[in-house]
Amino acid sequence: MRSLGLSHPMEELVGLREGSPGNPVTLHELWGRCPSIRRGVQGVLEWLKRMLFRVGEDWYFLTALGVLMALISYAMNFVVERMLLAHNWLYREIGDSHLLRFLSWVVYPVALVSFSSGFSQSITPFSGGSGIPELKTILSGVVLEDYLDIKNFGAKVVGLSCTLASSSTIFLGKVGPFVHICAMMAAYMGRVRIKTIREPENKSKQNEMLVAAAAVGVATVFSAPFSGVLVSIEVMSSHFSVWDYWRGFFAATCGAFMFRLLSVFNSEEETITVLYKTSFRVEVPFDLPEIFFFVLLGGICGVMSCAYLFCQRFFLGFVRSNRFTSKLLATSKPLYSALAALVLASLTYPPGVGRFLASRLSMGQYLNSLLDNNSWALATRNSSPSWPTELDPKNLWLEWYQPEFTIFGTLAFFLLMKFWMLILATTIPIPAGYFFPIFVYGAAIGRLLGEALSVAFPEGIVAGGVVNPIMPGSYALAGAAAFSGAVTHSISTALLAFEMTGQMVHGLPVLMCVLAANAIAQSCQPSFYDGTIIVKKLPFLPWIRGRYINSHLVNVGHFMTSSITTLARDAPLQEVIKVVTSTEVAEYPLVESTESQILVGTVRRAQLLQALLAPPPSWALGQQVGPGQGWRGWLGGQPGERRERLARDPIVPFCLQRHLQDILAEGCPIEPVTLQLSPDTTLHQAHNLFELLNLQALFVTSRGRAVGFVSWVELKKAISNLTNPPAPK
Amino acid sequence: MRSLGLSHPMEELVGLREGSPGNPVTLHELWGRCPSIRRGVQGVLEWLKRMLFRVGEDWYFLTALGVLMALISYAMNFVVERMLLAHNWLYREIGDSHLLRFLSWVVYPVALVSFSSGFSQSITPFSGGSGIPELKTILSGVVLEDYLDIKNFGAKVVGLSCTLASSSTIFLGKVGPFVHICAMMAAYMGRVRIKTIREPENKSKQNEMLVAAAAVGVATVFSAPFSGVLVSIEVMSSHFSVWDYWRGFFAATCGAFMFRLLSVFNSEEETITVLYKTSFRVEVPFDLPEIFFFVLLGGICGVMSCAYLFCQRFFLGFVRSNRFTSKLLATSKPLYSALAALVLASLTYPPGVGRFLASRLSMGQYLNSLLDNNSWALATRNSSPSWPTELDPKNLWLEWYQPEFTIFGTLAFFLLMKFWMLILATTIPIPAGYFFPIFVYGAAIGRLLGEALSVAFPEGIVAGGVVNPIMPGSYALAGAAAFSGAVTHSISTALLAFEMTGQMVHGLPVLMCVLAANAIAQSCQPSFYDGTIIVKKLPFLPWIRGRYINSHLVNVGHFMTSSITTLARDAPLQEVIKVVTSTEVAEYPLVESTESQILVGTVRRAQLLQALLAPPPSWALGQQVGPGQGWRGWLGGQPGERRERLARDPIVPFCLQRHLQDILAEGCPIEPVTLQLSPDTTLHQAHNLFELLNLQALFVTSRGRAVGFVSWVELKKAISNLTNPPAPK
Repeated sequence: MRSLGLSHPMEELVGLREGSPGNPVTLHELWGRCPSIRRGVQGVLEWLKRMLFRVGEDWYFLTALGVLMALISYAMNFVVERMLLAHNWLYREIGDSHLLRFLSWVVYPVALVSFSSGFSQSITPFSGGSGIPELKTILSGVVLEDYLDIKNFGAKVVGLSCTLASSSTIFLGKVGPFVHICAMMAAYMGRVRIKTIREPENKSKQNEMLVAAAAVGVATVFSAPFSGVLVSIEVMSSHFSVWDYWRGFFAATCGAFMFRLLSVFNSEEETITVLYKTSFRVEVPFDLPEIFFFVLLGGICGVMSCAYLFCQRFFLGFVRSNRFTSKLLATSKPLYSALAALVLASLTYPPGVGRFLASRLSMGQYLNSLLDNNSWALATRNSSPSWPTELDPKNLWLEWYQPEFTIFGTLAFFLLMKFWMLILATTIPIPAGYFFPIFVYGAAIGRLLGEALSVAFPEGIVAGGVVNPIMPGSYALAGAAAFSGAVTHSISTALLAFEMTGQMVHGLPVLMCVLAANAIAQSCQPSFYDGTIIVKKLPFLPWIRGRYINSHLVNVGHFMTSSITTLARDAPLQEVIKVVTSTEVAEYPLVESTESQILVGTVRRAQLLQALLAPPPSWALGQQVGPGQGWRGWLGGQPGERRERLARDPIVPFCLQRHLQDILAEGCPIEPVTLQLSPDTTLHQAHNLFELLNLQALFVTSRGRAVGFVSWVELKKAISNLTNPPAPK
Repeated sequence: MRSLGLSHPMEELVGLREGSPGNPVTLHELWGRCPSIRRGVQGVLEWLKRMLFRVGEDWYFLTALGVLMALISYAMNFVVERMLLAHNWLYREIGDSHLLRFLSWVVYPVALVSFSSGFSQSITPFSGGSGIPELKTILSGVVLEDYLDIKNFGAKVVGLSCTLASSSTIFLGKVGPFVHICAMMAAYMGRVRIKTIREPENKSKQNEMLVAAAAVGVATVFSAPFSGVLVSIEVMSSHFSVWDYWRGFFAATCGAFMFRLLSVFNSEEETITVLYKTSFRVEVPFDLPEIFFFVLLGGICGVMSCAYLFCQRFFLGFVRSNRFTSKLLATSKPLYSALAALVLASLTYPPGVGRFLASRLSMGQYLNSLLDNNSWALATRNSSPSWPTELDPKNLWLEWYQPEFTIFGTLAFFLLMKFWMLILATTIPIPAGYFFPIFVYGAAIGRLLGEALSVAFPEGIVAGGVVNPIMPGSYALAGAAAFSGAVTHSISTALLAFEMTGQMVHGLPVLMCVLAANAIAQSCQPSFYDGTIIVKKLPFLPWIRGRYINSHLVNVGHFMTSSITTLARDAPLQEVIKVVTSTEVAEYPLVESTESQILVGTVRRAQLLQALLAPPPSWALGQQVGPGQGWRGWLGGQPGERRERLARDPIVPFCLQRHLQDILAEGCPIEPVTLQLSPDTTLHQAHNLFELLNLQALFVTSRGRAVGFVSWVELKKAISNLTNPPAPK
């Protein structure tokens, strides 16, 4: 054995003591010789295992969610783009016959939309719309059965792809359903995890995951992690924890990074950049007096959003109540979709009305063209470019110019037509997002004002001796943020606008514009999603606005339901059966005795019924009613009949001579009351409790006695009394 | 009377029917003639009044707060700038004698810091430090007496101005104390409002105002409304409501707008722009492989922040425990401040060590120079500019270059020296912010890495055939966000960096860098503010991290204090007095009877004592102890003595033959229990309740019986048991 003459432990470890086949250095020997290293390595491995396990519980899950959803989002975009290209190719190559061109323009979206509607509706009945209102309801604690079931996943993905492939013809977006898809995926992954790790099921953890999923949904569509988190929070909930917010950030960043990385890998982009690049002037982006116009724009957007929200709700109600449309929607959704798509597609046929709507642009191109920082009105004042026969990707803005109409005419016509076309599109029962169209619509409002200003002040607004031409694109940016913010009642759309464009030089004016729009919209109309919740009659808990200071003065005692049905432990079975058969609540408060009414816990109706109908374990009682049969046999028939018979025949319980506590002792579980209100709890506190802990109902106890019951119904009524105090008598 | 021949109502209203002095048209007549207009005008006025009143409750307040704080912030900046100019002038004009120059450099900050320390400490004892830890404690529901008293306002403003005027010599910032000043102002305005409108006092409303004030504080210092709101939320609380967040936005936007408007009015700026303008390349801001270095930078910042936080806490503890320094701090704070300032100022003397620390730059210039997008290392590779004798505002970066040291030497030396100098500065008891120095320090870390990369890849990282030189400034931006984020445990510092520079092209890499830094810092060290809370021994409630899923399995019954002292209504006075004199809690649970222990409400100790010592209203009892004297007279002496005597002498209560309920009936108020826990409430729920509703303690009832008590102490212990599960036996 050749020794290197030094017994350095590393040398031993890496097996430098070579040769000597007769005396092989086994791994065990190596370990055995240097206990300190062995201990060290073992320690490091242990530490690594601990660290990975500690980190592992959630963060891996969030990463996986983000990456997976980015892949899906990118794949959808990829497919949609190819489908759009195919449509364009078809439209271009079909020849010059107007009829053929018209048909190729119209049939494609009509087919896609009716397929989207039929396919998704056949799999899941609630696939229409954006899904955000339902998700909001779920996050507030209501259980909507099957809504997050993974079997809807395919329906939503395919349906949404078809919707998106019909692009600007139908003028719908991607965010809402994609958030729903993310939530489905998160719920599914959560269930898988529970099965594999055998972790106990945990409601609040599921909610945390859904919040993160919503952030991922927005972030992977717009590649905007910051606003993804903030918009999802503002739209979804009324309270949030910083912990959820961090997790949302993490997942959203993973998603957005992966989403943009895929574009780079696919050679669409040089590097990771923003989606809608702008090139606004940085030195003096706007002049001080322009702030006034930005706030004015906010006001206009606020008023427009109120009109939009009102008309949208009205039309949705009309479609549902009108005899013809409601019948059509009930019996043949694809037909309704096809008819609506036909109307929309015919109107956007480019050689027809469509040329005044710039309808050859796709959704993304609409936004890109509107954010252009040059003034179109000034550019077309002296020259009059003709309408290009083909879409020119370098000069998208030319689509907006019609010599006979001017820029203003086209923009105004676009706003006028898209107002009702968008409302019509929202009634089509397909998976579709309504955020992006609203964003584009807002951009058009801003652009119109911006162009008007650039004509009114062609030299720019001179301040401090420097001439700064007005950039209409900045108004488009502000308008987009303000209108979408007003419609969804959120402020972080301003941040979204910055993240989508990568420039933040208009920070303050855009924020002021959004605040102005929100001030008007929030005081006049419920948000788009709340409106849908109201129309769809989903349960919701209204807010207590800060100004209703009297919410601190109203106590639970004032508005609780005091007439509650309690079950006493010492109640005879006859009485219990009477209560169970005469009421239909999900759980009963269980009290110590009829006299004391001290709340002990709750009993689920289903479990109580089961216990009542089960044969008593001691057959001594069973003897009385016939040997070997038990109650069930004695009563005979199906469970429904038996229940009725129990209620009808007062002799049965009497002959049994038993009390509720016997039934409970035999195996009907009592659920503990973890939280209870007191009649002195203020409305404000109760509302906070319900919102934060996602509660549905609580019992009210006074000195231990169950005295009442508060659920969303009572809270809603109490809050509406704050808002509209009852007329003085 | 000359009639115009038309009876247009407007004409009447504006008094066009002129002339005819014999028949004057009185206002009443005018009104009387056109009832429809009158009704209209009255309706509009009514509506306006309603609207204004409805809006008025809060929004005016928030606007006033924002505008006022912007004025104060701007005025402070203005004064500080003048003081800095004066110092620079003195230093320049004093001649070439090294001694004189040294003295002029050193004496100015030493005088300012010792004045700042002496002045503010003489007015308010807790004016040192940033104030954010205390505010955080207040927002979690703890009452810190006098901390928000307006009398501290002057001390803080003057002290902070002096601190800032010593600028980069002491290397401290503005945010923390300014947030405290905002909170004081908000609390003061709130008190004024309560007095003028005679609104009932409302704890939760006060908290809302403080949250908004924190946002205004950050926003008016950095003119960054978005990140003002988000940073203040992340640093201050663990839960927040969307409603607070909107109010924060509104107030912060008002503040930031006013703050920047003042610069425009003062002709410092052409228009409203960002504070630290950058000009990063927009097209291809970075190459894909650079993402790796950004994440690496995040890791470095995370590790550095852990080292910084550990050393800072250690040194703070050392200064407090060391015999010499603790004595100095206790007896003569200004002397300690002067000594520390002397050390710091001597080291930054520009012709001495200071030239290797770029110490002629002010705090803002530090950041501005570090964000420069050109590579200094490449610029100095072939040429070797000499150190300018005067600061060159056009080429600030020259300050960082010393021919014998190179850029890398200076940056590394800066990082090394400022590490302990900053820690030393944080121990000086003056009002000072620690956020901005940390931000600048992080920028220097990033700059060092960026310069190294620009030398390692002088051609830039070639991707897709396009050469994109590396911008070290983008690493400085990321480093600043990551290091400050890691030290304060917040992610929105990334957004702050974007808002301060107005560019968002590095959105994803900076966010990933911040996330990496936070991941390391949060798992190893408490945040800067939490560390201060721990060192200052302020009460705090730790978080439950998401991974401790067992927080859902631990019930209140497991960790509550079961040995509580209850007062029964039927207890004889002797017993009550024994309880009151033997325990020192603030309030006692009042139970129905000794036997049933049903919780009825709580009784405050102070009020109970008062009631016990008051003369009984029925003098029939008083007769027994001496006519005309009552208990008080009979017991004699001061309240303290009387209390002792009551406890000592068991005969007194006996002879009175009374029970607690008599005392209660005579006027000792019983406070209702609005919320109560049950032994089955989970730790998670209880923690949420305490955090959201800012509670200090709750009673635990089971079937109405008071069985225990949970306060922060019990919760803390239960949470630490989750984190470090007790060793298995």
